[in-house]
Amino acid sequence: MQDDNTVFVGNKPVMNYVLAVVTQFSNGAHEVTVKARGRAISRAVDTTEIALNRFLQGVEKKNVQTSTEVVDTESGKTHVSSIEITLVSRK
Amino acid sequence: MQDDNTVFVGNKPVMNYVLAVVTQFSNGAHEVTVKARGRAISRAVDTTEIALNRFLQGVEKKNVQTSTEVVDTESGKTHVSSIEITLVSRK
Repeated sequence: MQDDNTVFVGNKPVMNYVLAVVTQFSNGAHEVTVKARGRAISRAVDTTEIALNRFLQGVEKKNVQTSTEVVDTESGKTHVSSIEITLVSRK
Repeated sequence: MQDDNTVFVGNKPVMNYVLAVVTQFSNGAHEVTVKARGRAISRAVDTTEIALNRFLQGVEKKNVQTSTEVVDTESGKTHVSSIEITLVSRK
């Protein structure tokens, strides 16, 4: 059991990330955190909703946090919104 | 002071929604809830982050909730993710 299981959501199809989350719980994770930045934030919410409603029994949302991160780009620093959704097993 | 001040975030530029949130607090709202569905979820997070970091003094995030809503479309019912971010004035 690891405590820092994290799934970073990007631009791939949402089911890739759902599978990643489900796999981590199947492998015995107690908590899984789903993170995303910018436009992938919507997909992160989709990921946790699909995982919870269709695949995971006995898992619930523990916390949802939004924040701003500073990212270095070629044209200088820029701000980007981010989200962290933590899922926890009730077992 | 109203208790049910809500800003629905859609497909317009993010600053429209930031302005709507800031205006509600300027008009004496104690709490403002920002809601969005589907791909507008990322924009809702941007809205609250920009409003909090650049415009609003003495306002903080109270709660972030994600959920699934059932929507009727021409081709039947479908599920869509949604987010609700509640901001509250410390005053």
